[in-house]
Amino acid sequence: MGAQTRTVTVKYQSPSAGAREIRFGGRDFVVIAGPCAVESREQLQAAATGVKAGGAVFLRGGVHKMRTNPASFQGLGGEAFKFIAEIKAAAGLPFVSEVTDPRQIGDLAAVVDMFQVGSRNMYNYALLAELGRLRTPVLLKRGFSATVEEWLLAADYIVRGGNENVVLCERGIRTFETTTRNTLDLNSVAYVKAHSPFPVIVDPSHGTGRPELIPPLSLASAAVGADGLIVEVHPDPARSLSDAHQALDFAQFNSITEGVARVLEATGRTLARL
Amino acid sequence: MGAQTRTVTVKYQSPSAGAREIRFGGRDFVVIAGPCAVESREQLQAAATGVKAGGAVFLRGGVHKMRTNPASFQGLGGEAFKFIAEIKAAAGLPFVSEVTDPRQIGDLAAVVDMFQVGSRNMYNYALLAELGRLRTPVLLKRGFSATVEEWLLAADYIVRGGNENVVLCERGIRTFETTTRNTLDLNSVAYVKAHSPFPVIVDPSHGTGRPELIPPLSLASAAVGADGLIVEVHPDPARSLSDAHQALDFAQFNSITEGVARVLEATGRTLARL
Amino acid sequence: MGAQTRTVTVKYQSPSAGAREIRFGGRDFVVIAGPCAVESREQLQAAATGVKAGGAVFLRGGVHKMRTNPASFQGLGGEAFKFIAEIKAAAGLPFVSEVTDPRQIGDLAAVVDMFQVGSRNMYNYALLAELGRLRTPVLLKRGFSATVEEWLLAADYIVRGGNENVVLCERGIRTFETTTRNTLDLNSVAYVKAHSPFPVIVDPSHGTGRPELIPPLSLASAAVGADGLIVEVHPDPARSLSDAHQALDFAQFNSITEGVARVLEATGRTLARL
Amino acid sequence: MGAQTRTVTVKYQSPSAGAREIRFGGRDFVVIAGPCAVESREQLQAAATGVKAGGAVFLRGGVHKMRTNPASFQGLGGEAFKFIAEIKAAAGLPFVSEVTDPRQIGDLAAVVDMFQVGSRNMYNYALLAELGRLRTPVLLKRGFSATVEEWLLAADYIVRGGNENVVLCERGIRTFETTTRNTLDLNSVAYVKAHSPFPVIVDPSHGTGRPELIPPLSLASAAVGADGLIVEVHPDPARSLSDAHQALDFAQFNSITEGVARVLEATGRTLARL
Repeated sequence: MGAQTRTVTVKYQSPSAGAREIRFGGRDFVVIAGPCAVESREQLQAAATGVKAGGAVFLRGGVHKMRTNPASFQGLGGEAFKFIAEIKAAAGLPFVSEVTDPRQIGDLAAVVDMFQVGSRNMYNYALLAELGRLRTPVLLKRGFSATVEEWLLAADYIVRGGNENVVLCERGIRTFETTTRNTLDLNSVAYVKAHSPFPVIVDPSHGTGRPELIPPLSLASAAVGADGLIVEVHPDPARSLSDAHQALDFAQFNSITEGVARVLEATGRTLARL
Repeated sequence: MGAQTRTVTVKYQSPSAGAREIRFGGRDFVVIAGPCAVESREQLQAAATGVKAGGAVFLRGGVHKMRTNPASFQGLGGEAFKFIAEIKAAAGLPFVSEVTDPRQIGDLAAVVDMFQVGSRNMYNYALLAELGRLRTPVLLKRGFSATVEEWLLAADYIVRGGNENVVLCERGIRTFETTTRNTLDLNSVAYVKAHSPFPVIVDPSHGTGRPELIPPLSLASAAVGADGLIVEVHPDPARSLSDAHQALDFAQFNSITEGVARVLEATGRTLARL
Repeated sequence: MGAQTRTVTVKYQSPSAGAREIRFGGRDFVVIAGPCAVESREQLQAAATGVKAGGAVFLRGGVHKMRTNPASFQGLGGEAFKFIAEIKAAAGLPFVSEVTDPRQIGDLAAVVDMFQVGSRNMYNYALLAELGRLRTPVLLKRGFSATVEEWLLAADYIVRGGNENVVLCERGIRTFETTTRNTLDLNSVAYVKAHSPFPVIVDPSHGTGRPELIPPLSLASAAVGADGLIVEVHPDPARSLSDAHQALDFAQFNSITEGVARVLEATGRTLARL
Repeated sequence: MGAQTRTVTVKYQSPSAGAREIRFGGRDFVVIAGPCAVESREQLQAAATGVKAGGAVFLRGGVHKMRTNPASFQGLGGEAFKFIAEIKAAAGLPFVSEVTDPRQIGDLAAVVDMFQVGSRNMYNYALLAELGRLRTPVLLKRGFSATVEEWLLAADYIVRGGNENVVLCERGIRTFETTTRNTLDLNSVAYVKAHSPFPVIVDPSHGTGRPELIPPLSLASAAVGADGLIVEVHPDPARSLSDAHQALDFAQFNSITEGVARVLEATGRTLARL
C-alpha cells in the first residue's frame, strides 16, 4: 500500500533552523494541530507552544470560517494575519488555514504554507481552479457527502491547473448515524492509498465530534496507512468559540502522539519530528 | 477504554487438549475465520486446517444463508451438521454459524459454540428473545442501517432473557458511498468500548467488500480497540459459492494476523493463540 | 402507468352485505386506517366506527408490535383476537395486522384478512417463505433502508411459494435528514408502478412522522399513482400507547379522504367506497 | 398550508406586452422549463418556442455548468449572453441561469431575471452573501445532502444581506438508493410550506433522473403544495450535451403541464399562464 503515493513537500522558514520542509506521503506521519478558529494573539500563541510541545509539526487555525448559521462567529479575517505571521515564525512551524472564496487567496498566500479547502467547498470548482494556478500545497477535505470518486475528481480540478501538490483529508461523511457527528470512513483512506497518487490524512476531530473517540480513531488512522492527522487542540477547550465540544487540551493531544508513534513503529513507519 | 467491558467466555471441547475456552473482551484479541458458506466436507476441512495454521482460534461457516435473491444458493442446511461436528472436533476449534429462524435453534445448538445473528436479523426480536433463553454466546452483528443505540437495544433483547453472553460485531453500514460494499464504522467500535459493557469485534470482509482493503482495515480494527475480527477465508476464493469477491486465501489471511499481532503489541494487547 | 399492475383481491364477510371484496391495483384507491396498536376493545371499537365514517374501507391495528426498546409496550397479542373478530364483523370492514414471527401465522390467520410484514421484517426471509405457502394477501412494507430492487426480491420470496397476492407499501426510508422521522420516497412508488406487477400503497404516517405533513403527502401519494394509503388514526391521539406523535384524529382523517377523492378524480381514478 | 408564504415577484420585459411579472408563492403554480445547458442559439431558440407552447412561463438554461468531471462540457459562458437576451425577449419569457462564482454576477445580471444557486453551491456562503446585496430574485436549490434546517439557514445568508426574494427548490437528496439518481424529498416541500416563509418549487428532472418518473412526480409536486416546477426539456433529448438521460421532449412536457393543471384545479389552485 502507498508505494505509488506522490510526495507533497511543504517548504517554510524557521528562524532558528532556516529553510525547512515537511513531506506528506513518505515514511513520516505528519501531525497538524491547533484551534478550530484563530480567536486572538494570546490564544494562537498558547496553542502554537502547546501543540509543538505535544508533537505537532504543523499549525492549523481558521481565519475565514464556514458557519452553517450566519449569526455564528465567522472568524477574525485579515486582522489576524500580522500576529499569525509572527507566531508561526517564532514557533518555527508551517501554518495551514482554510480559504472559502477565490478572492481571499492573494491575502492568505502571505501567511499560509498550505491552503485548506473545507468539506463544504469540495464542489466549489471555481475555487479549486484558482488554487490550481498556484504551486502552494492544498489540503483538500472530502465533502461530507462526496463519494471517493467525486473527491478524486475534485483533486483533478487542482492538478489540471498545474498544481500537483494536493493532500487529501478524510473528515467523516454524513450518514443516518447520529451518535457521532460524522461517520469517519477509514475505508476511503485505504482505498486512496491503494488506488490514487495522493497522500491522505485524517481529521478525527470532525470525523467523530466526540473527544473520547478521537484517541482511538487517531491510532486507527495510523494503522490503516494514513499519511497524517489534523487535530483540533485548544489551550482552553471549554472557552473555544467554535467546535468547543470536540477540541482537545494539550495533555489529551500529547497522549495521542505518543500512542500513534508506537503504532507507526509497529507498521514500519515513523512520526515526523521537527 | 474497555476497562468496563464484560468478558464473554466460549467453552468448547478439544480432543487433544480437552475442555478449552476462549474469552472475548479481555486482553486477548480473538480472530475468527472461515468460509462465508459451508459448501462441502472437503471445503470446510481445508478451510479449518488453513485458518488454524494462519492464526485463527475460531472457525466460522454459514449453514443457513440469508440471500437477497431467492434464486441464490441458500446454504446446505442440516445435512452439513454431521461433518461440521467431525471437522471442528478434529481441528480443536470452536464453531460459529448464523441462525436465521427461531425454529433452527434446536438443531444448530448441537453443532455451534456461538450463534451468529446476521445484519438483516438484528431487528428480528422474536429470534433475539429465543436466544435470550439460552446461555450459549451470541455474536450480534449490527444492522447495516442500525444506529448504535438500536444495536445496543437489540443486545438488550437477548440480555433481558437472561443470556448476558453477547458479543457485538461491526460489519459496516449502508451509506451513499458505492466504492466500497459498506462503510466500515470504526467510530461505533470506539463508542461501544467507551459506553457499553459488550465486547465488540469487526468484520472487515463485509465492511469493505474489497480484498485489498481488508488488511489495512484489520490493522485499524486492532488499533481502535476492537476485541477481535471475523474474516472470510476460502481455500479457493475464486470458486466460492458466495461473496467470492471478498474472500481471502490462506496467504493473505496469514499476513493479516502477523500484522495485527504487531499492532496489538504496540497497544499493550496480544493475539489470542490456541 | 399501472397498466401492467396485477390486481390483488381481499375477500371478507360483511354481516349486512355478506361476501365482499376489495381490490388493490385497479381503478379504486384503497384507504386503510386505524390505530398503530390495538389497545382495548373500546379503543378499537371507537376507531373502527370513526375511520369507517371517515372513508376508510379497511381497518388496521397492531397486535404483535416490533419495538426498538424491549421495555416498550409490545402489543396485546392473542387476547385481542376475540374482540377484534367481533368488531371487524360488526363494522363490516376487513382487518390487516402485522405478523412478526412465523409461529404467529396460525392464530393470526383466524382474524386477519391480510397479513402485514413490517419494515424491520422485510429481510426476514423465513417469515416471507411461510407467507408464500398461504393464499391470504400480504402487505409487504419496504425496509427503511432497502433498495427498491431488494424490496421487489423480498416480494419474490412470497410469490415463489405460490402466493401472488402481494401488495407493497412505501413507508419512508432512513436518510441523513432528521426533520422528518423518515424520508417518504415517492420515486419508489412511481418506479414500482412503471416496472413491477405489484400494487403499491403509501404509509404517510411513518413516512413523515409529523401530523401536519400527513395530509399533503397523502394527496401527493394519490397524485403519483399509488393504489392506496394506510394511515394511523386514533380516537384520542394524545392517549395513544405508541406513535402518539403521528396519530391523526377523526376530523383530520376525514379531511384527507375528501382531498384525496378530488385529486383522484382529477387523475381519472376513484376512492374505494363500501 | 402555505398561508404564510411570502410572495416573490420576478419582473421582466415582454416586447409585445411590455412590463410583466411572475409571482412565486401565490395561487399560481409556476412552470420553468428549458435545457440543462445552453448549447447554441438554434438549440435555445427551439427550446424557448417549444416550452412556451407547452405551458412554461419561465425559461431556464445553464451558461456556467458545475461538472463533477473537469473534462466534461463546462458551458458556453459569456459568449451566449447576446443571443440569450435576444431569444428571451422575442419569446417574452423571463430567464433563470446558474451562478457558480461571485465574480460572474455582474455579467450574468444583464441577462438573467433570476439567479439560480445550484445544489453543490448551497454551502457557498461567499456566493450567497454577494447575492444578498442584490434585489434580483434567487432560486436556491437544496444541497443534495443538506438538512432542511441547513437549507433554510443558507436562505438566511441571502436574506440577511437585504434580499428577501428567495425561492427554494427541492431537487432530491443523496441516499443509499441507486434505482433513482436522487431521492426526491416531498416531505421537505410540505415542511417548508408549513414552517417557513419561502416559496418552494420542485425539480423532478434531477430529483428522479429517469424520464418515466418525471410526470408522476410532477403531479405529486403539485398535489403536495409546491409553488412550481423546474423541468429539463430539450428539442432533441438524445443530442443533449448534458443530462441527456433525463431531458424530456416537447410532447412529454406538454402532457405534464396538462396533468398538473388538473391536479391544481382539484386543490383550488391554478397553473400560471402568460
